[in-house]
This record gives sequence, C-alpha cells and structure tokens, in this order.
Amino acid sequence: MKALVYQGPGKKGLEDRPVPALVETTDAIVKVTKTTICGTDLHILKGDVPTCEPGRILGHEGIGIVEQIGSGVTHFEPGDRVLISCITACSKCEYCREGMYSHCKKGGWILGHKINGTQAEYVRIPFADTSLYKIPDNVDEEAIVMLSDILPTGFECGVLNGKVKPGSTIAIVGAGPIGLAALLTTQFYSPAEIIMVDVDDHRLEVAGSLGATQLINSQDGKAVDKIMQLTEGKGVDTAIEAVGVPATFIMCEDIVAPGGVIANIGVHGAKVDLHLEKLWSQNITITTRLVDTFTTPMLLKTIQSKKLKPNLLISHHFTLDKILDAYDTFGRAAETHALKVIIKV
Amino acid sequence: MKALVYQGPGKKGLEDRPVPALVETTDAIVKVTKTTICGTDLHILKGDVPTCEPGRILGHEGIGIVEQIGSGVTHFEPGDRVLISCITACSKCEYCREGMYSHCKKGGWILGHKINGTQAEYVRIPFADTSLYKIPDNVDEEAIVMLSDILPTGFECGVLNGKVKPGSTIAIVGAGPIGLAALLTTQFYSPAEIIMVDVDDHRLEVAGSLGATQLINSQDGKAVDKIMQLTEGKGVDTAIEAVGVPATFIMCEDIVAPGGVIANIGVHGAKVDLHLEKLWSQNITITTRLVDTFTTPMLLKTIQSKKLKPNLLISHHFTLDKILDAYDTFGRAAETHALKVIIKV
Amino acid sequence: MKALVYQGPGKKGLEDRPVPALVETTDAIVKVTKTTICGTDLHILKGDVPTCEPGRILGHEGIGIVEQIGSGVTHFEPGDRVLISCITACSKCEYCREGMYSHCKKGGWILGHKINGTQAEYVRIPFADTSLYKIPDNVDEEAIVMLSDILPTGFECGVLNGKVKPGSTIAIVGAGPIGLAALLTTQFYSPAEIIMVDVDDHRLEVAGSLGATQLINSQDGKAVDKIMQLTEGKGVDTAIEAVGVPATFIMCEDIVAPGGVIANIGVHGAKVDLHLEKLWSQNITITTRLVDTFTTPMLLKTIQSKKLKPNLLISHHFTLDKILDAYDTFGRAAETHALKVIIKV
Amino acid sequence: MKALVYQGPGKKGLEDRPVPALVETTDAIVKVTKTTICGTDLHILKGDVPTCEPGRILGHEGIGIVEQIGSGVTHFEPGDRVLISCITACSKCEYCREGMYSHCKKGGWILGHKINGTQAEYVRIPFADTSLYKIPDNVDEEAIVMLSDILPTGFECGVLNGKVKPGSTIAIVGAGPIGLAALLTTQFYSPAEIIMVDVDDHRLEVAGSLGATQLINSQDGKAVDKIMQLTEGKGVDTAIEAVGVPATFIMCEDIVAPGGVIANIGVHGAKVDLHLEKLWSQNITITTRLVDTFTTPMLLKTIQSKKLKPNLLISHHFTLDKILDAYDTFGRAAETHALKVIIKV
Repeated sequence: MKALVYQGPGKKGLEDRPVPALVETTDAIVKVTKTTICGTDLHILKGDVPTCEPGRILGHEGIGIVEQIGSGVTHFEPGDRVLISCITACSKCEYCREGMYSHCKKGGWILGHKINGTQAEYVRIPFADTSLYKIPDNVDEEAIVMLSDILPTGFECGVLNGKVKPGSTIAIVGAGPIGLAALLTTQFYSPAEIIMVDVDDHRLEVAGSLGATQLINSQDGKAVDKIMQLTEGKGVDTAIEAVGVPATFIMCEDIVAPGGVIANIGVHGAKVDLHLEKLWSQNITITTRLVDTFTTPMLLKTIQSKKLKPNLLISHHFTLDKILDAYDTFGRAAETHALKVIIKV
Repeated sequence: MKALVYQGPGKKGLEDRPVPALVETTDAIVKVTKTTICGTDLHILKGDVPTCEPGRILGHEGIGIVEQIGSGVTHFEPGDRVLISCITACSKCEYCREGMYSHCKKGGWILGHKINGTQAEYVRIPFADTSLYKIPDNVDEEAIVMLSDILPTGFECGVLNGKVKPGSTIAIVGAGPIGLAALLTTQFYSPAEIIMVDVDDHRLEVAGSLGATQLINSQDGKAVDKIMQLTEGKGVDTAIEAVGVPATFIMCEDIVAPGGVIANIGVHGAKVDLHLEKLWSQNITITTRLVDTFTTPMLLKTIQSKKLKPNLLISHHFTLDKILDAYDTFGRAAETHALKVIIKV
Repeated sequence: MKALVYQGPGKKGLEDRPVPALVETTDAIVKVTKTTICGTDLHILKGDVPTCEPGRILGHEGIGIVEQIGSGVTHFEPGDRVLISCITACSKCEYCREGMYSHCKKGGWILGHKINGTQAEYVRIPFADTSLYKIPDNVDEEAIVMLSDILPTGFECGVLNGKVKPGSTIAIVGAGPIGLAALLTTQFYSPAEIIMVDVDDHRLEVAGSLGATQLINSQDGKAVDKIMQLTEGKGVDTAIEAVGVPATFIMCEDIVAPGGVIANIGVHGAKVDLHLEKLWSQNITITTRLVDTFTTPMLLKTIQSKKLKPNLLISHHFTLDKILDAYDTFGRAAETHALKVIIKV
Repeated sequence: MKALVYQGPGKKGLEDRPVPALVETTDAIVKVTKTTICGTDLHILKGDVPTCEPGRILGHEGIGIVEQIGSGVTHFEPGDRVLISCITACSKCEYCREGMYSHCKKGGWILGHKINGTQAEYVRIPFADTSLYKIPDNVDEEAIVMLSDILPTGFECGVLNGKVKPGSTIAIVGAGPIGLAALLTTQFYSPAEIIMVDVDDHRLEVAGSLGATQLINSQDGKAVDKIMQLTEGKGVDTAIEAVGVPATFIMCEDIVAPGGVIANIGVHGAKVDLHLEKLWSQNITITTRLVDTFTTPMLLKTIQSKKLKPNLLISHHFTLDKILDAYDTFGRAAETHALKVIIKV
C-alpha cells in the first residue's frame, strides 16, 4: 500500500508498505478513506519530536471503513464506517477510567507517532472498541475528519478548560486551524464577545466569518492595549492560547481578568515567564491539556444536529498520491491560505 | 490610643494616635481585644509594598468588641464580640456579588494597608455588616483570631483551589503559618497522604504533630526525587505552594501528577519559569488567589464543631505595649520557633 | 397616581393611590415606564396566594427611571434608567451571600406581594443597590422588561438547574411564557434536540419559530411514547417542567433518561406522585427553585450581544389606563394567543 | 462446590453445584475466600425481585483469589487477591464511558441476580479487568469485603450525591448497614453535625460510636420537630434517606433546608408523595442512584491510609457451611444486633 513515511529530520516520502495485520485481539484494521495533515506532523518532520522514529507512517486523523477486527473487538464489524480518534484508549487503566485518555498507559497519542498512522491506505487501530467511533448516516464525511483531533482539541483544551459561559468575554490568541476550532466550539456556550488575535489578516477574516466579534492583528504590538480598551480595563474572562510560543502566552497573562482563565492549547517548545509577581493575587486559573477526545460522542451529536459545521475549516483537497503537494500547501499556509487539507485515499 | 505605625522602610514605632471616628454610615468602630502579626506586615516594613504609605497603622487581623456603628449598619450592635476579616467587602459591586471579595471595588485588602489597621486599641471597619463576623459563644477566642486571614487563606487559596479529595496525595511546600493553615484545613477532605516540605526541622516537626504523613527537609536538594519515589513516579494530585519564591514554585511544577493542580498561596515578588515545554500536555491546573474570606462562616462552624483547632498555630503571647518584642520574635522565627503570635490589646 | 390594586379574591381595580415615599435609607423610588403581567398575578387574583393581602398594588416586573434615592443608595442616581428585579436582595444575609436571593431574609419575592408593586406610576424599591440594574444604552427596552422575572426564571430554574449541555436532548413541558423563556435560554448551551410539549398548537408553533426542534401536542395522551421513540427508548437528558400540575411532572418522571435531570419551574398547588419504585436506581436528579435573579447581569450581556432576543415573547401592548383590558387579554391566552403583554405607563 | 441457591420465594438451600468455567475471553474465575449477605439478598428471597430466577446462586459481595483468566484479561493473573465489585462494568458502552457503571449495557448489577453470585466456593466474573480490584498488601481483608457494595453505595448515593461539605449539617435517616456506611464516609468531608435517625436504640448507639453527633429515635413521631429545633428552624443541608419506605422519604422532605439536598439511597417498593406545593420554591435537589462503584479505587486508598475503618460494620462471623445460620442471624437483626456478617468460604 501507499504510505507517507517520515524518513528522518527534513525528509519524507510516499513509500510502498505492506498492509498492516492484526497484532492484538483488540485491534482493528481500517481502510482509510480520508485523512488530513496536522501541525504536529510538521513538527515531527522538522525533527522536533524525538519519540517519533524514522520509518514511521505519519498521520493521526482520518475516517475509513473497518476491514478486519480482532476476536476481542465487540463494538465494530467489518464494513462499519468509522472515525479514527487521534488518541488511543485502552479503557481499563486508571487514567482511562477517569476519562483522561490522553494519558492511557497503553495508548494516548501513539498513532503516527509511536506506531504507524493514518496517512496510508490502511491503518492498524489498537483498542478499536474505544478508539474508533461509528459515523452516523446523513452527515458530511469531511466534517467528521475534523473530529479526529482538531475539534476535540479546541473544545476540551480551550473551551471546556477555559470555562466559557454565556455572556462572557473570550480572547483566542492564534487563528490557525486549532484556534478556529476553539472559535467554532466556544460558540456552544454563547459568549458575548469573542476577540480573535493573529498576525495574518486572511486568517482573521476567516475568523470573522466564523463568528468572532472582534478581530485584532497583533503585528503592531498593540493587541494588549486594544483588548484592555475593549474590556474597559478589566480584561477577558477566558484567554485561549492557540499558538505555542512565549509571546502569545504572555499576552494571555496580560489580558486575563481577575477571576479569569488562561486555557493553553499550544504545543510549547520552550519555557515561558509566568509573572506571579503580578498574578499571585488575581484569582486566575491556568490550564494545560493534551486532548482526551472524551467529548467525541458529544461533538458527533452537535454535528448531527447542525450546531457545529466543521467543514468550514477545510480549505484544500488532494488525493493520497499527491500528499507531498498537500504537505507543501499546508506547510506554506501564509501564502496558500491553507487551513485543513483533506486527502482522499 | 496606642498603635503600631509604619514609619517608612525599615522603621516602625508604637505611637499615640487619636481613636478613629465613624466616616461612612456603613462603618463600625471596633475596640480591638486581640490581634496578631502577618508575614505581609514584615513585607510592608521592608518597603516591599509601596501602596502602603508611611504613617499607616498596621494589622489586618484580630477580634474585638463593637464600640460604635454607623446608621447604615444593621447586623451588629455595640457590645457584639466580632471577628475582623482581613478583607473588606462592600457586598454590592460585581466582584462581591460573585463572592470574590478580594477584588471588591471599594474594599479588598485595605486594612493596615490603605487605611489604618488592627494593631491598635481601636479600628474603623468600613462595610461592617459584611466585613465583621459575630463570634459564637463557647469557642476559644484566640482560635478565632486565626480566622481573620491565615485559615481562610490556607483553605481557599490552597485547599479549595487545590481540589483536595478523599484518598488523594497532597504536597504542601512551606511549613510556615500559612502552610500549616493549609495542612489543618486540607484534612477537611481526608486526603490519603499529606507530604510537608520545608527547610526547617522544627516546623516539619510541628507539621507532623498536626497531621502531615510525610516530612521532607528540602535542604539537600532531593525533595523532588523523594516525592516522586513516594508516589511511585506519578507525582502528587495537589501541590500547594506556600512560600512565594521561584524555587518552591518550580518544585511544584516538578512534582505535580498528570491531571493535578498547583495551588499557589505564596506572595511572589518575582516572575517564575513555567516549563510549558514539559507541562503543556500534562493536563494540569495552576491557580492563584488573594483570599476572599467567603468561607469564614463555614470555617466558624468547623471551629464550633471542633473539626478545626487553629490555636495549635499559636506559639507566643504578648501585650500591645510589647508589640515591638512581638515583631522581633515573629521576625526571627527560625530561632524563636514562632508561628503565630497573639497580641493582647 | 394610578395603580392596579388587588381587592380580594376575584376582584381588582385601577385606583388612585398616593405616590410612594422613601422609608429606609436603602430605598429608591422608581417612576415606572413599562410593566407587564405574570401568571402569578392571576394566581393572586384567584385568592391562591394568601400571603398577598387585599389592597396590595400588584406587579413584580418592569423598567423605569430612578426618581429619588435614600442616603444609603450608592450605585444609582435620579435619572438612571433601571430594570426592576422581581426579587429583592439585601445582599448581607446568609442566603444573599450565597447568591440565593430568593430566600433573602428581608427580601425575596415581596414586590406586588408583601409590599406594593410595579403596576403603578411609581414604586418603592427596597435595597435598591442590589435589586435594580442599570439598563445599557442601545438595547430594546421592551426586551429588558422580560429580564425582571421570566428570563432568569426559565434560565436559572430550568436551564442551569437542568444542566443543559452541548449535544444533549431536552424536553420542555409547557410552552407558556416561562416554557418559552426556558426554550430561548436553553439554546445558550447548544443542545442537539429541544422537544417542546404543550396542548396548544399555537404555542407550539411559536416554540417552533423560537428554536424547538420537535413539537408534540400532548392532548392525545401519547407524548411519553413519542418522546421515548424520538430518543430510541433512552429518554431525555433534561426534562423541564414549566406548567405546575401533577400530570406534567409525572410526564417528566416518565421521560427522563438514566443519569438525567428533572428541573421544575412550575408553581405547584398540590403534591405529586414520585415513582421512586422505578426511579430509585435511575441516577436521576430533581430540582426545584424560586428564581434568584443572580444571573441578571449575565443575561443583560447576552441581550447586549444579541445572543438573546426576548422581545419575541411579547405579543400585545397596552397603556396603564387600559390595564384591565391587558389582564383580560392575558387571562384568556388560549383565545387571544397572548404571551407577555407590555403595559406602557 | 457448595453454593447458596435461591429456590423460589421463601426458599433457599446450600447446594452442590459444578465449579463455574470461563465463558467469554474477558471472564475470570475467582475462588471466593470471604463473602457477606446484603439486604437485597433478603428481598430476592421474599420474591420481591422477579428478575432473579430460582436456581440462582446468590451474593454480589466478596473477596477471593483469581483462579483462572480468559485470554482477553490483561490486568489480573491467577493468584491475585481481589475485591469483587457488586457492579459489573464492560468499560466500553456509553454508560461505562461516563462512569455510570450501574447502567452498563452488558453488566450493571448482575452478580447473584441475573448470573450466579459470590455465596459459593467459586464465581465467574465477567469483564474481570474492570469489575475486580487488586487488594493492597497490609490491609485488613475483612474491611475490604465492605467495599464490594455497602461503602461505595453509602458514599456515592448518599455522600457524593448529597454534596456534603465541611461545616454542613447532615441527617441520615436509617442506621442500618447502608446508613452506617454513609455515616462513615460522610466524615470524609468534615460536616459540623451528623444527625442519625432510627427506631432501634442499639443501631443508634453504634452510630454514636462511629461519629454521629446527634441520635434521634423516631418512634415517638417527633423526629422532624427535634431536627428543626436542632437546626434553629432551618433544616439540614443534606438529608440522606437510607431506609426505602415512604415515611422516611417524607421525613427528608420535611427537614431539608432551602438550598439543601435529599440524597436517596433506599430501595423503594412504592411511590412516595412529593410535596411540591411546599418544595417548588425551596431550591432543593433530590437525587437517586444505583451505586456505580466508580469510587472503589479512591475508597481503597482511604482504607490504606486508615481514614476509613469499615470493619467497624462487621458484627458476626460464619463459615460457608453455616451460611443458613448467617442468613437467620442477618434476617433477625433487631434481635441479634447483626450489621454485616462475614462468611468465610
């Protein structure tokens, strides 16, 4: 089968690989029908993720059709159309039993990282019963691809951790795909204001069309001032960090109101300054989280009921044999205006 | 009347001052019967708190007897024995209505800071109805002095923010009066382990007698290793920071388990390194808080029912005319083994 | 001044009364500009509310302009445009400090009940600072009238108590003004399905236009069967009772899913059968509540930000001199299709 | 093997039965070492539980040693000492994934009910990985038997649902084993007062020795009056119903304070009157629950750390060949003063 393989820092290729076989009784083999590329895949390709070894098939998102199941799989049958979660959950360890699947002792984020992933014709899914989800009839399949990672990440790490409430004021720092996923799902809770901050006017424009009420290009260094003005000096109830660099986290420290929350989504590569000399008395909460995808069933319902329309996040379409072009387009997002790209397998 | 006055950085004195008079209709004048000294008073004396101007009578803790009330005071009468809260609450602003009295627009921490305080024979208490509490009969008055600040601070900032639960594992970094207040009140929730960390063996010994299950002197630099061993490599569910310097906050970052909480109590004078490159994926929560004292009525009930015995935190007794000795004893706690000192007025 | 007065069971009249004067320093006198009629006013007129004595001016809803303030009022000035809350809150008693203003020891629901109300040219408002709210500029004043009672009631008693969540399935039993207020505010949380049940096709039609996804006329006795079918035998996550009679409460018992909530809003005049022989093992929650109006500031923000459009609940307009006609129209709602009627003063 | 078999209403016997064999790959066979009798077993014997058919081996509590495991069992090995949960959890269905194991689509309460139970030398445990728990070293094994059902039931249905808080006032109506389990675990949260109500002075005496602060024998019909006096007319914050008959539930309705909770534990055989004509405005919450045993790991930690000493609930010891005597003793509890009886296998 064709598969996109990480060949070491800076190198990748579309290789021929054997179709995966069942290993454990709880495995399923899924024929991938659509997949996509994540910012994390770009990090791996740069060599930033040493736990991902060369030779690995990338990809932790996608949908497909169950091809084969192990004897211990009881919730799926060959032929089932399924969503593949980016997080693998054994359902039995102490973390899984608390719903913290991201820290599953045998799973967590392993797909396209520690085991072969979804940017291929077939993928082996461990603990299939609790790592796959049936796709309901009558929903747009491409929308469902957004549920593998980006929407639960924006929702769980940004919106739920950020305790978004009706009438509250939210700032989302970063209007990339993850920030836009937070933007879509924050509207589940009817905040009064959603201030979107980015350095890219195109992304801000997209954010405006998706429900942001204020758009701030932070390139002039005045974003904090503008947000404090908009909030009459109080700051925001929830600041969602969706970039992953010190400057944007510190912006969140500067704009959070007393009693507010900074919900970090960004994948950080360096420490940041936490200004406790200012914040110690401000009754604030800071949260971090690797997505648990425990809200996937809830999110599926919101798609079925049309409360959530995630295909708005899809900008480009490719086929698997053109996946190198897809990576190129996704990697030059500022020029190509790429958000999420769908790769048809 | 006699009053302990801040005379500028490094200087203080017991001065003669006029007895305060009612200013607003919502004020009460309280004859102070017992007061105490807080670590914050030492900070003011060093000149670390520029919002406190020379000439200020210090002190934000104490009990007394209502001497006089303004026409708008409806819940107290002259003669009532009262606890003075360190936080003044107007009860009407948006913060007060959410129970966040610490950020009251007309109050907050003003006593012994922006207005004259309790280390005097009399004190004027603004918004008396919601800043004083009646002392029940049949309770030890000295225990009640601990409710002005230290116990609600340990409880709200450390225990409630730290989400302490039955069976959980807690570390409290810092066994000074505030850390010990957290130790006492964390036991309301029956954690399985309470690990106490300090550099002073005497304070650790006190902690052991007050319910800590593990005592770690961190002077050898091995506290983190020891805690990780005690928790089988997992870390603690709740890490309570009760010192206020970067090293102890970073210790909390190093020992918090996935899904855990770092509850900051310490008053920090400098920024700290937040290691998001490690913590971004650990599903942790960090909280800060200036005490709101919204739990004072609850804490009074736990004292009445003997679930809480705060007089264990009292180490020395003085009279107001010896308050300079009291400051000296409290200021050299390592040598004098001082915890909280009671000053009889 | 003109005022609508309860003259004993079955009797009411538009009388001439003296303009009210300040009694306490915390009072304000408000010149009423718009008021409305509540179902509770009809109950009083039938004689069902013995705590309301003949001679009382009715009405606990409305907006107006501050005419005069007592010396203890600090948050309002003459000339301020204000929303009058149906609940009077002293802000100092133990209930107020927990946000349970409905049980305020000196207030609660007293307007148009134990003291004279808002269906008059002027009204005296006790504890004005925490019982009035400033009306923001640029909002529709008639929409604000809905915030005195009906919207916080639907929201707090129905939606918040009912723990409505994104993707969940809600049934609202009763499509009168209160049920419709619950319908509007339940959408703050993006449930997947909102099933509306009533016996009046017109009200169901209105519900459909306001966002209900399923409309069930229960006159044929098959509502429970239909709801169980719609939910594939599982039942609803939240059942909101908005009528106040045994049959509708029992319908809620019959349709609530395991783990679900029955949130009662209805004012009940008789006991109901609670089928614990069936429900004891179903992990359900039942809640009751008299509205606290603690969410009024939040609701004002949702109106300002256009997330909530309560003027959809207004069906008729009258002037104060025609208030008897207004009562007639509101009292014959099935024929007149009245929802809320606005009375211009 | 020997097994206690339900032989139809009113009939039971100690029979010889074949040792159970593995059926599913997720099964384990456990050699029972200690078991006990539950009030529910008595209900079955009376014929009150038609879903339990004659021929069934009774018992849903106990500890033992894993004898054999299916190929899909990954968390246990033969020889492991284990606690058997009364609730069987598949860990994969929608209810299990929300922690509501009681409603597991393939499990729930099936042991000694729909499949053979633990009052035998061996028992087959489905979904062993998530229905058994390893017994830690150095704990009293008999204490662990109390974790199969009674302690999680008291804790989850009574204490957690009842939202017990430090300083609060609790009433537990019913001092049988379940009420006493609630009494032990309510102390995890340091309530100020725990009022215990029963008609049996011996049980009340036991309650007094286990931490109840007020003991009320309700035979004189004055329990409600006494409780209202003790609470100065306010009522209790949490009323835990631990009997299961209308009179005790109605007592809870009569004593719950505004804003309080009625947490039902009792297994009810008949409907009760819910006095909504009084309670509709009282801001109360009523909860029901079949135990989920999701707190078993937490409870194990509290036993290890000696915060919980459940062997105080054990009154008698028998061997399996004398289990008919054990039933007799347990069935005549008023005379024999039986609480929980341990049956050594």
